[in-house]
Amino acid sequence: MTQVAVIGLGLIGGSLARRLAAAHDVVVFDEDAATRNLARAAGLTAADELTQTVSGAAIVFVAVPMPALSTMVSQVVPALSASAVVTDVGSVKAPLYAAVRAQGMGARFVGGHPMAGTERSGFAASDPCLYDGAAWVLCLEPDTVLPSWLRVAAVLTGIGVRVVPATAAEHDAAVARVSHLPHLLAAALASTAAAAGPLALTLAAGSFRDGTRVAATAPRLTVAMCRANGEAVEAAVAETVDLLRASGPDPGLLLAAGHQARRAWENREIVTTDLATGAVGLADRLLELGRRGGWVERIGEHSLSVAAPASV
Amino acid sequence: MTQVAVIGLGLIGGSLARRLAAAHDVVVFDEDAATRNLARAAGLTAADELTQTVSGAAIVFVAVPMPALSTMVSQVVPALSASAVVTDVGSVKAPLYAAVRAQGMGARFVGGHPMAGTERSGFAASDPCLYDGAAWVLCLEPDTVLPSWLRVAAVLTGIGVRVVPATAAEHDAAVARVSHLPHLLAAALASTAAAAGPLALTLAAGSFRDGTRVAATAPRLTVAMCRANGEAVEAAVAETVDLLRASGPDPGLLLAAGHQARRAWENREIVTTDLATGAVGLADRLLELGRRGGWVERIGEHSLSVAAPASV
Repeated sequence: MTQVAVIGLGLIGGSLARRLAAAHDVVVFDEDAATRNLARAAGLTAADELTQTVSGAAIVFVAVPMPALSTMVSQVVPALSASAVVTDVGSVKAPLYAAVRAQGMGARFVGGHPMAGTERSGFAASDPCLYDGAAWVLCLEPDTVLPSWLRVAAVLTGIGVRVVPATAAEHDAAVARVSHLPHLLAAALASTAAAAGPLALTLAAGSFRDGTRVAATAPRLTVAMCRANGEAVEAAVAETVDLLRASGPDPGLLLAAGHQARRAWENREIVTTDLATGAVGLADRLLELGRRGGWVERIGEHSLSVAAPASV
Repeated sequence: MTQVAVIGLGLIGGSLARRLAAAHDVVVFDEDAATRNLARAAGLTAADELTQTVSGAAIVFVAVPMPALSTMVSQVVPALSASAVVTDVGSVKAPLYAAVRAQGMGARFVGGHPMAGTERSGFAASDPCLYDGAAWVLCLEPDTVLPSWLRVAAVLTGIGVRVVPATAAEHDAAVARVSHLPHLLAAALASTAAAAGPLALTLAAGSFRDGTRVAATAPRLTVAMCRANGEAVEAAVAETVDLLRASGPDPGLLLAAGHQARRAWENREIVTTDLATGAVGLADRLLELGRRGGWVERIGEHSLSVAAPASV
């Protein structure tokens, strides 16, 4: 049982708080009073002030919208006990680390990012099962305090999350391709179809519906994440544009490669092993695990249970 | 009760035959004997020869893979009674019309295309509910025999399909944008993510899963449809590539426009009216209905019940 605080009760923070409350001592806060009352109605303990929320916490999850993250982290850290750690759920990590370090708070912070969500937003859309089996990146940077990282990881694996170790830069490059790029492609597909007129929209069926689902997400959220990861997103878009242009008169190669990639992703074989918590160079071994597509499944007293795709 | 034949029992033909058999006298054929036996096991009447299958039919649905369509139509027509009509389910219409006309069979043919499917294929994947509420294009061309068109449309609306009138060229331009383009974007997304390595694939979640779902489709099917509609597909890809490249350093406009387009598609308001079957210029009025995003819902003795999005 850990003392946990969750700041920001939208879809992401609300879902997390509701799930954590089943296992830990959780206090929540949202700057919106109506949202705090919604949280109370859902059985959560909501404080009316930020300081009150975080003062007793061992781990603080900051789940406010991305543009407000660094300011919130800098408000939370001074109110914390010396051993407490702050983590977040923002979808881009390098700029946030830069802002946190500029305030000398790098050692108090472990950047995080849950790879789950829906096209809806707000506490009313929250779901305590949102993260069941989801990947959740926890950044390992040169200034990361490993025991803090392990403490956050233990709470997350405890609620059934797959904790993926990665540097902030590795994270940002990866999500540009598997998260931000899909949002841009969905928007481009929806716009191209709409420009084709009403007949096209009447003929739009499953491939269009699924291909544009995330275009229903509130644009303020997708714009903020794509802007914050600008360089990596531009590189990802350029790669996709090259593939599309090269497909030109004969799309056979592109369609075959895409099929192979999707099937390989569906059918990855996973192998589980153990890693001693006292292992030499544990942080580097965890980062190497992440690069192989692996994650931490469970944290015991003496060892970590880790999983990764079988090498081919 | 109409005498109907279905040739080709993959996902599309199999699903259609199983649904039609609940309301009509249906005989089916597939060149694969094992598939014919699967169909019999599912309660269908399967003939062992093509001629035997179609000789008594008033409507023949040809549902073989696209590259085999025109050959099959030319084999079916000579075996038909004079009043019978052949229709198909291929995903590209103009090249098929050209091939059918080259054999002098244009007046016997009504091109069709159901806007439904899954990423699976084969009779084993067939589902009699696949077309419930689906749009189904029936082409109206200058040489279309209107009573034949209405006969096919009556059978399809009778099983709950929305029959969308369009010329072959209009159909091909529309599906390039709402069906073929999504398959190419799914392939490009899957390939871009795979090239980013195992970490990216572990972080791939909902937006990637939905954005690449149709990349799981057998490439021989998607390649055939994209190749057959080459010009329109290249134009659609070029439009999307332009949107993606223009989004460059600031994707705000693209994401906002895509959001608006997806929401407008979800929230279209539909208005239903009647159209007399004896109306002057009925074919042109039906084509105009299709251009407005409308469809035929039901065909009565004296009038057609039609629906279309309210004009904004």
